[in-house]
Amino acid sequence: MSKIEPRTLSGFMELMPNEQVLFNYVKEQITSTYEQYGFYPLDTPVIEDGAVLLAKAGGETEKQIYRAYHNNPVDENLVLRFDLTVPLAKYVAKNYNSLSFPFRRYQVGKVYRGERPQKGRFREFYQCDIDIIGDGALSIINDAEIPSIIYSIFKKLGFHAFKIQINNRKILSGLLFGLNIEESRHSDVLHILDKIKKIGPEKTKDELLSFIDSKAVNLILNLVSSQESTDNKIAYLKSLSVDNELYNLGTTEIEEVVRCIRLFGVPDEYFEIDFSIVRGLDYYTGTVYETFITGHEEIGSVCSGGRYENLAGYYTDKKLPGVGISIGLTRLFDKLKDIFETKKNTVDDVLIVSADSCYESCLTIAASARSVGLNAEVYVEDARLKSKLKRASKLGIPFVIIIGEDERKSAKVILKDMFKNEQYTLELQSALEKIKNNKKI
Amino acid sequence: MSKIEPRTLSGFMELMPNEQVLFNYVKEQITSTYEQYGFYPLDTPVIEDGAVLLAKAGGETEKQIYRAYHNNPVDENLVLRFDLTVPLAKYVAKNYNSLSFPFRRYQVGKVYRGERPQKGRFREFYQCDIDIIGDGALSIINDAEIPSIIYSIFKKLGFHAFKIQINNRKILSGLLFGLNIEESRHSDVLHILDKIKKIGPEKTKDELLSFIDSKAVNLILNLVSSQESTDNKIAYLKSLSVDNELYNLGTTEIEEVVRCIRLFGVPDEYFEIDFSIVRGLDYYTGTVYETFITGHEEIGSVCSGGRYENLAGYYTDKKLPGVGISIGLTRLFDKLKDIFETKKNTVDDVLIVSADSCYESCLTIAASARSVGLNAEVYVEDARLKSKLKRASKLGIPFVIIIGEDERKSAKVILKDMFKNEQYTLELQSALEKIKNNKKI
Repeated sequence: MSKIEPRTLSGFMELMPNEQVLFNYVKEQITSTYEQYGFYPLDTPVIEDGAVLLAKAGGETEKQIYRAYHNNPVDENLVLRFDLTVPLAKYVAKNYNSLSFPFRRYQVGKVYRGERPQKGRFREFYQCDIDIIGDGALSIINDAEIPSIIYSIFKKLGFHAFKIQINNRKILSGLLFGLNIEESRHSDVLHILDKIKKIGPEKTKDELLSFIDSKAVNLILNLVSSQESTDNKIAYLKSLSVDNELYNLGTTEIEEVVRCIRLFGVPDEYFEIDFSIVRGLDYYTGTVYETFITGHEEIGSVCSGGRYENLAGYYTDKKLPGVGISIGLTRLFDKLKDIFETKKNTVDDVLIVSADSCYESCLTIAASARSVGLNAEVYVEDARLKSKLKRASKLGIPFVIIIGEDERKSAKVILKDMFKNEQYTLELQSALEKIKNNKKI
Repeated sequence: MSKIEPRTLSGFMELMPNEQVLFNYVKEQITSTYEQYGFYPLDTPVIEDGAVLLAKAGGETEKQIYRAYHNNPVDENLVLRFDLTVPLAKYVAKNYNSLSFPFRRYQVGKVYRGERPQKGRFREFYQCDIDIIGDGALSIINDAEIPSIIYSIFKKLGFHAFKIQINNRKILSGLLFGLNIEESRHSDVLHILDKIKKIGPEKTKDELLSFIDSKAVNLILNLVSSQESTDNKIAYLKSLSVDNELYNLGTTEIEEVVRCIRLFGVPDEYFEIDFSIVRGLDYYTGTVYETFITGHEEIGSVCSGGRYENLAGYYTDKKLPGVGISIGLTRLFDKLKDIFETKKNTVDDVLIVSADSCYESCLTIAASARSVGLNAEVYVEDARLKSKLKRASKLGIPFVIIIGEDERKSAKVILKDMFKNEQYTLELQSALEKIKNNKKI
């Protein structure tokens, strides 16, 4: 029979078993932190009604949509989700009367985008989102909690140096009003500032000068390029005494956010104010976040988000302000898997093998190992002892318990430490204890 | 602005937050058991190349396929996975040279089938699969390990009575050869026997008599209807002294499987031999399994699978025998969520609230709670104390820590036990200790 080549589509991540263990470990650090902060899991369908999910989409988003059908592509308007925010909006609007607000949810799931295939671009990728949704109003303290969650996660993942950059969209918007810059040009200014790290301050200045007077340009550039301390940046904001309500609200908010971030226990070296951060022009209205791993800034922000006025305006009249972040796990893993401090890449704590072909005692030993909380495999295939030990090496299993005739007679086991390449003859309980203690370290 | 109704497609499960917590708890019991037995996680794409995934499909399967496209449904041959077995076959064939055999993998993921919409039928549902794949050969002991895994899972989920039914396809096939029944009619016999529980022994007998002589029919029906003990059933198999190699091999195998199931520690009341179990005619070749929850037999088998000769014949010349099972989690949860013994349905261990509007101490208390391993939410919205407590009730949070002016002065906290409706004034550490101890129970 002719064979079909077993391919996996490009742009779709599929990991080897040891990598998958590490991936799941990283995912687990993220979700357990979300739960520590009292977020509830949500799992929405991958397929949704296009009429619902694309209510808001347009332009670039719409072009990237994957569509699905069962019988007929023309009659069925089914789409694969392209993010976890629109499904959240649908869910909250749909279940408004049953939910307790603020609604704190996390969702970790795959989303689909028809990206052009190129290295490091994924068409199927995990997003790990949290959002806090208020009913009508939502305290600014929530905006300060988010960075403390980001801090906890990246610390847990073993990153020693990273920076959470914070801004408040109201500040720049208010400043532009305060400087009497025509409202129709505001988005142009923000677009230009959004690129400042890419094109540099000189080019930014030139572009701004084409439609704003130099005094205003200098003021804006002074602000967004400031290298001062967090507190000095806030003091500077206040010193400008801009006569605009939005500006003053933004200033008050960022000051309160910084005060509370510190109360949440985030050390100053892990966050900073960066007035150049804009992010999605239409969506965020207050605090915004980006996160950069020190020394790996080239991969871009690994965790971003912000505050929005209204989550679900397309579905409901209820005003639902929120704040949230997203971690693009697939890309993060792809780029940084080699530098995660942890090297967890095996499921098994112990492999149990027979020195001969007598498996009975192996099965009961495995049951004992599992009953004390260890993950254990019994090697039951016919093979030489050497091949059995090779399996442990290949899978990275730290210990092997070996049973032969002598051990069965003496009611002991041989415990082989694969990393130290040492072996001991012990009673079973002592061997299991040793494996357990090793696991705790 | 006119609003779009926020709908979710029928046949797609979307749970409320407390249900989702329970669902995730059940999922976690399954995956942690799989890991206890040394299975490695696998996560294959939801979308695959149709030319690869549908290599083997046909008939009913093909009709249920969901297809996907990005630009053009005609040019793109993309399909959503309809099970986790074909992706496994592709994966093992693709990575044959890198994997360590026996390859033990688990996969928990959503699959898609265009089922006719009706209550209890899902178009998107979770399968939780394990398979053990051998390279050329695979010990029969693996067939005995599978029921011990099923036993562990359903025990953990709080089911007190359930039955794992075991058969070996070789027995009946061999018997039919031994009885000199034409090979072309074997599948007819198996089809008829597969329905015996539905149509009853009388009707089964009538159907068989239409093409087999009565002596043979009686022998077959005696076997498949036997109500004897496991050991008597095996003794009966041997006593028949059928002159057929396949029959004798099946008999030897099921005897060895039963012997090892007991070594794995599965009590006799949790498994039985049922010679009428056939399952998927083309696929399984040896041991087969079904699992029924006592008192809920009407929902069908909640965990099924078996032994197959060759996993990936469409993709590779390598012979890859395997054994595996699948739990249909979405359906299981839908049918049985009310009877899971555990009532885990909340993420938070404690809600921390301010009796006034002073949140500083709440934030530091939350940090302390999290540092000792508790999940904690701070209620930071403006609301009366009554509303804050109501949130704890609604979400099922067992404890509330309340801080007011008195507590701040005395460096104590009020701990409210929501289930007992009692409250105590304590030092923070004692309060956290109390919450932790409660969690352990």
